[in-house]
Amino acid sequence: MFRKILYPTDFSDCSARALEYVKKLREAGTSEVVLVHVVDVREIEAVVTSAAWLGETAAEYEARFQNEIREDAKKRLDEVRHELEGAGLKVSVKLPEGVPFKKILKIAEDEDVSLIVIGSHGKSNVREMLLGSVSEKVIRGSKRPVLVVKRDDTGISW
Amino acid sequence: MFRKILYPTDFSDCSARALEYVKKLREAGTSEVVLVHVVDVREIEAVVTSAAWLGETAAEYEARFQNEIREDAKKRLDEVRHELEGAGLKVSVKLPEGVPFKKILKIAEDEDVSLIVIGSHGKSNVREMLLGSVSEKVIRGSKRPVLVVKRDDTGISW
Repeated sequence: MFRKILYPTDFSDCSARALEYVKKLREAGTSEVVLVHVVDVREIEAVVTSAAWLGETAAEYEARFQNEIREDAKKRLDEVRHELEGAGLKVSVKLPEGVPFKKILKIAEDEDVSLIVIGSHGKSNVREMLLGSVSEKVIRGSKRPVLVVKRDDTGISW
Repeated sequence: MFRKILYPTDFSDCSARALEYVKKLREAGTSEVVLVHVVDVREIEAVVTSAAWLGETAAEYEARFQNEIREDAKKRLDEVRHELEGAGLKVSVKLPEGVPFKKILKIAEDEDVSLIVIGSHGKSNVREMLLGSVSEKVIRGSKRPVLVVKRDDTGISW
């Protein structure tokens, strides 16, 4: 029932809270975790479009920027992987590019996971206020159960 | 982390699916379940307003109708309680009246639960299409984690 968990993270505080629940679910039979960070193509486009390229072409700038983002994400994913493995879980790591909620739903199906564990709010508060949160879209589109971990158990939610 | 669960049910198929997850969470440390059915005051008002009262006053009709709903809900809650107790869980039962998502959020706070386990869709498809589902409002308003169990793991979600 909780055997294989999909845990998408954007490295926000709320994602870190969700990680604690993933680890705890080992006691309820979780053995495997698919750890995912989606590089949001729309953010890269937005930055590239609005940036000034000091001596670079747009393509060079985009390639460099994208590379930096991926390298940073790899390091962070590695830390999370170690933490999950330390809790006795088998982990596979994915770092795709795309629109986060779509990629998350696709991976949930491809990997046939039992459960998705996700933070209710990501890093990008402004985008979420305008377009709704990734977690809301994941819950709507998912065929599988979703455990939504809120930003702050003691604070005020929107 | 999962010690005390709030499990609201409207006796739909989706709520029944959610019940299986509540039982399974015992392995992850759940010991106590607050089992809740909210009698939706808006539904009673709608029925009373639109009904013809054969020899009854509106107040008599409302009282009788409300009583029937409560008696039916009590029986169903009793069945669910037995099932949870059979799984080794301590259960307290609540049958309040009100607007479901508001009552659910209030009880989650009053009872200081660790987790809410809820079906993604209730019985009233038309109302949900117009006003959004109870589960969506619970997720938004909750300070606590919410496990959302979807209607059909193999079917198509909206």
